[in-house]
Amino acid sequence: MKATAFAPSNIAFIKYWGKKDEALRIPENGSISMNLSGMTTKTMVEFSSHYQADEVVIDGKIIPQPDRITAHLNRIRDMAGFRNRAKVVSGNSFPAGTGLSSSASGFAALTVAGAEAAGLRLSEKELSMLARQGSGSACRSVPDGFTEWLGGDSDDTSYAVSLYPPEHWDIVDIVAVVTQDPKEIPTTEGMKGLRKSPFSGVRLSDMDRKIAFCKKLIKARDFCQLGELVESEALEMHAVMITQIPALLYWTTGTLRIMNLVQAWRREGLPVYFTINTGQNIHILTLPETEAEIGKRLHSLRYVRDVISNHPTSGTRLVTGHLF
Amino acid sequence: MKATAFAPSNIAFIKYWGKKDEALRIPENGSISMNLSGMTTKTMVEFSSHYQADEVVIDGKIIPQPDRITAHLNRIRDMAGFRNRAKVVSGNSFPAGTGLSSSASGFAALTVAGAEAAGLRLSEKELSMLARQGSGSACRSVPDGFTEWLGGDSDDTSYAVSLYPPEHWDIVDIVAVVTQDPKEIPTTEGMKGLRKSPFSGVRLSDMDRKIAFCKKLIKARDFCQLGELVESEALEMHAVMITQIPALLYWTTGTLRIMNLVQAWRREGLPVYFTINTGQNIHILTLPETEAEIGKRLHSLRYVRDVISNHPTSGTRLVTGHLF
Repeated sequence: MKATAFAPSNIAFIKYWGKKDEALRIPENGSISMNLSGMTTKTMVEFSSHYQADEVVIDGKIIPQPDRITAHLNRIRDMAGFRNRAKVVSGNSFPAGTGLSSSASGFAALTVAGAEAAGLRLSEKELSMLARQGSGSACRSVPDGFTEWLGGDSDDTSYAVSLYPPEHWDIVDIVAVVTQDPKEIPTTEGMKGLRKSPFSGVRLSDMDRKIAFCKKLIKARDFCQLGELVESEALEMHAVMITQIPALLYWTTGTLRIMNLVQAWRREGLPVYFTINTGQNIHILTLPETEAEIGKRLHSLRYVRDVISNHPTSGTRLVTGHLF
Repeated sequence: MKATAFAPSNIAFIKYWGKKDEALRIPENGSISMNLSGMTTKTMVEFSSHYQADEVVIDGKIIPQPDRITAHLNRIRDMAGFRNRAKVVSGNSFPAGTGLSSSASGFAALTVAGAEAAGLRLSEKELSMLARQGSGSACRSVPDGFTEWLGGDSDDTSYAVSLYPPEHWDIVDIVAVVTQDPKEIPTTEGMKGLRKSPFSGVRLSDMDRKIAFCKKLIKARDFCQLGELVESEALEMHAVMITQIPALLYWTTGTLRIMNLVQAWRREGLPVYFTINTGQNIHILTLPETEAEIGKRLHSLRYVRDVISNHPTSGTRLVTGHLF
């Protein structure tokens, strides 16, 4: 009744913003992402009749009201047909709650460890479906490498599949951490306002084309065109966010400065593009030959607190040894 | 053959972004603005057969290639039927080229002084039409108080009219100058990309409704609803800008900080809303009873270089005495 899993976070090239179904977390549109080697979560789950309540420890701290985790453990308990409470011990390799998608790696690891500890024998598709119910983008961290979340319109049509293994293409995603403050408005709340933007209809009607184009560029390993697509896609999502009512202004001065720097570096001839999720950090896509140079430049910036370099990596894996 | 005019800048509540006709500066949509008492330009124009070339002095500096001003003087010379060159001496009460619409007050003053110096007897409508050809938003600085630029679709249907005199409603527009650097991409260039945004169609199709709603709120003196409309309109224009290809990122860290502060001050209960043009400065709408408090708060910010408080004011006026 005990298992440990290791999960990567992921960076979306085509973004997830808005749900068709709140409870099941069925997204308004499909999305595409890459698993990140340097941003990972390891989670141990142990079910036991000796526990009176779910006990959750993340990064060494007991979580007093782990409601969202208990809700996810209940999904696993319902499938397994028992009521045992669980002990969950989880550690992130990066700061949680700052737009670095700790919920993606977190719920992917919780799902895979929890299902194993409960004795469920789930397929990758079933694990991805289950992870999605914990946190939408977590479903993309289950399969390997470059993944597509098939948006779907029901529980069993909404899950992620691997498009290519990590070896397909060595591109680099460097995260500049500009703040470690938690977001003011959590993603789950913010995306409820999608339909309040006058631009949501135009955006949603173009997503299938964008996804097909993104897959073509990953297949062709066309870095410049992919970078342009990814950068304009991030700006489009933020254009929707700032036109929601109430407006969501997620950028910080640090993200804005780096957006401008990336554009200036590109004018210098460097292969760099940015993308931003809902938080206060910024991801910079580049190629292995410029990884060191970009990393050095980012490290030299006073307002950059941390730099995390990522390559494509495998999806979520069980690990042995119960390391916690 | 000599005259001097005094013109206000204006702040658009409903924005001008994109042209139907580049040469005539016919806008894609109508717009609504308020003339600003504290941001003004005074311009003297003298035509004389003694000048070999147009000589233009702005804020004490000779402009070596005053092409855009010469083009505007040519419009006036064509109407008057003479070829005399001109001396133009102009002074701004605020830094030029930083998104503070110096071209609005500048071309309004140049138009009214130039037409008078050329002996033309033009109506307010004709002056507004002429000012528009120099710089689109200049047409809104010609009539009094709160003005509407009737977008139109030809030279003589595209001009501004006064909706209400300045006495109609004493609201306050406080400008926080966060940078005095000139813009990287001038407005005239940037707005050529409007149709490159996937959102331009949705935006343009909603402008007539917005304009009618804005006029209703000015008539009713409904400050909170007007503020909400103006703030969301500015964010919508910037959402279009950041989704153009290439993307226009006009915000600076200073504008972003003040956007967040204004929203925080509103949560405190203060009547404050922001709007931003293309530049690096931010306008804060408030009421006279909170003008001092907001001014004090802005002055205390390290990154705010200047604070300019404006009330509604008259349009462009001839002044006597040839003060230059």
